[in-house]
Amino acid sequence: MTDDTSERFDRGWATVAKINGPARDQQFRSLGEVAPDFARWIVESVYADVLSRPQLKLRDRELATVAALAAMGNSPAQLKAHVEGALNVGLGRDEIVEVISQMAVYAGVPAAIKGLQIAKEVFAERDAAGGGG
Amino acid sequence: MTDDTSERFDRGWATVAKINGPARDQQFRSLGEVAPDFARWIVESVYADVLSRPQLKLRDRELATVAALAAMGNSPAQLKAHVEGALNVGLGRDEIVEVISQMAVYAGVPAAIKGLQIAKEVFAERDAAGGGG
Amino acid sequence: MTDDTSERFDRGWATVAKINGPARDQQFRSLGEVAPDFARWIVESVYADVLSRPQLKLRDRELATVAALAAMGNSPAQLKAHVEGALNVGLGRDEIVEVISQMAVYAGVPAAIKGLQIAKEVFAERDAAGGGG
Amino acid sequence: MTDDTSERFDRGWATVAKINGPARDQQFRSLGEVAPDFARWIVESVYADVLSRPQLKLRDRELATVAALAAMGNSPAQLKAHVEGALNVGLGRDEIVEVISQMAVYAGVPAAIKGLQIAKEVFAERDAAGGGG
Amino acid sequence: MTDDTSERFDRGWATVAKINGPARDQQFRSLGEVAPDFARWIVESVYADVLSRPQLKLRDRELATVAALAAMGNSPAQLKAHVEGALNVGLGRDEIVEVISQMAVYAGVPAAIKGLQIAKEVFAERDAAGGGG
Amino acid sequence: MTDDTSERFDRGWATVAKINGPARDQQFRSLGEVAPDFARWIVESVYADVLSRPQLKLRDRELATVAALAAMGNSPAQLKAHVEGALNVGLGRDEIVEVISQMAVYAGVPAAIKGLQIAKEVFAERDAAGGGG
Repeated sequence: MTDDTSERFDRGWATVAKINGPARDQQFRSLGEVAPDFARWIVESVYADVLSRPQLKLRDRELATVAALAAMGNSPAQLKAHVEGALNVGLGRDEIVEVISQMAVYAGVPAAIKGLQIAKEVFAERDAAGGGG
Repeated sequence: MTDDTSERFDRGWATVAKINGPARDQQFRSLGEVAPDFARWIVESVYADVLSRPQLKLRDRELATVAALAAMGNSPAQLKAHVEGALNVGLGRDEIVEVISQMAVYAGVPAAIKGLQIAKEVFAERDAAGGGG
Repeated sequence: MTDDTSERFDRGWATVAKINGPARDQQFRSLGEVAPDFARWIVESVYADVLSRPQLKLRDRELATVAALAAMGNSPAQLKAHVEGALNVGLGRDEIVEVISQMAVYAGVPAAIKGLQIAKEVFAERDAAGGGG
Repeated sequence: MTDDTSERFDRGWATVAKINGPARDQQFRSLGEVAPDFARWIVESVYADVLSRPQLKLRDRELATVAALAAMGNSPAQLKAHVEGALNVGLGRDEIVEVISQMAVYAGVPAAIKGLQIAKEVFAERDAAGGGG
Repeated sequence: MTDDTSERFDRGWATVAKINGPARDQQFRSLGEVAPDFARWIVESVYADVLSRPQLKLRDRELATVAALAAMGNSPAQLKAHVEGALNVGLGRDEIVEVISQMAVYAGVPAAIKGLQIAKEVFAERDAAGGGG
Repeated sequence: MTDDTSERFDRGWATVAKINGPARDQQFRSLGEVAPDFARWIVESVYADVLSRPQLKLRDRELATVAALAAMGNSPAQLKAHVEGALNVGLGRDEIVEVISQMAVYAGVPAAIKGLQIAKEVFAERDAAGGGG
């Protein structure tokens, strides 16, 4: 790791921390065991270079990501992580339910149902953990 | 059209008007020539029953729709209509460029490039028409 | 729920009953816990306004739905529910196996294999329950 | 072409003729110029070995294919050929419009709109050619 | 099974054996229980007629298949079988990790992460079984 | 452009030059007009950080990319650019035709047909330009 990339890593990791809670730590470690360079690339090229840009608020980015992942419908684990992320950066449960429901219009009812079941799961885990949001 | 549905139609059409400009008039007419019941269903069941709900601002709905259509990547005409819609309900060009670029992360670079070319087309048409937004 | 929508709900629910057995009751209840308005929208705007229309027989609708869900390949739970529905509205097991196999042509062999495994699961559950169809 | 495959080719080509009109001739010739073995494989392994099987009527196969191609939404030329095919094997225009509209439920409204525009195009071409169906 | 097809079956099964280990035996048996004609079609029309052709080495075919299945992202069981197959026909673990990582560019980061988790699972199973590759 | 990123840009651009001919210049310029930061990100984070890595030969990377884009089927312009790229880094026309044909197995016949038509177009343009490859 050269010096000129460590600043990017730190900047990316700060955004990881804002969006994801401790769960993401485990996810990066798991990914790093099979593809360490790719795990680092995600922090630097995705979290630092794309998701940390000021042109869009994190709240808007997570709204868009939840919409896109629910619409594409084939990454339930990633959608779950971003429903968590959406709550972490300030979106309300009602907004998340609404945006996933809206995806029924653009990607079909099955995609929306699957997304809502994932959101329900996240909400239940938060309730069980006694946390708000 | 029975009386009990006309309120839903009017409510839906009011939302159509907010999101879409005169272009959408032509689109509904064209669709109505082959599938009139389906065209009406879109106004009532989509625009009135889903997109007019107060749980999410129209600005947020269009941000989510642009994200989802860019990510799914197979409805360029619909994406174009919703880039227009996004501008109409208050999103800035920089926010639209940013959210489509972000889709490179979730749906791949080709999807983002296609989406940005569509956005560029809309911006150029607006500039040519002398309109802002 | 206003009076003018209750007729739509009842009409939709009658179609739900024809396509789905008691399993769907549980599914709607589960969905209703996280998104009650959306669950209702499905009954009224999907089951009443689309799937109850006389232009296509329920048997043909379920054939088309099984084909589409097998081809898209990312909603196994929904596909399973509609293999059940297809049997409920009169399609034979051989027709279901055949239409899913045919999807290998249009959506690839992996999609067809996944769909056939789901059909096999439904058939086995029916056999275990002693039911025909 | 060895003798043992020619029966399969003939059987497949007979089904091509039932589903597709003269348009398909040109399509196979065009494909054969770049990938002759693959063009032949389609006639033998798809049209003879899959689509000619008696377990499902051609009318039902085309209904399923139109549904699947409209739902997947990324092969407009193929969907157009199969809307033609659906008319050729006895489906009515109203049934085709209905099954594509239904795909809005499973694959989203944009997919259905795109499919209906293609159907409309086929119907107009038939009307212009003075043909029925 | 007529005589003229048995040569195709044998040729296909020989390629099945090269790509897949004993696991595939079980998969074909399971598929054959619900759709025996389709299982046979896969051996003859896919493994004999397509995958046994000399125009592309098996190593290149598996590289391409792993790339495509990781990019499409909705057939994890099939992707797992082909990561196995890729190792069986001579691709290295580092090449498999690299090509799946590359799919982040064309199909998005979530698709690549899912694919890498599947690859990791295969590698771990091989290590546990004491096998190399 | 800060100094610490210019090395990455140069390294990425060298890979762009190997894969793409002068056509890509125009594509980057066009993209840069609407999203300059994203265009740069593609050179640095995609071409330098991913596609220039030594773990996989460029020839294998382009084979995988052609396979994936043909299978996903919704980026014809990108597929065309990578069929060009595949020829530029040493793949033969027969290998390209074969790998796209193989995608019929994993993504369906329509995806393969579309891909082959794009390959045919590239080959014809090369022939017209008097170039080999």
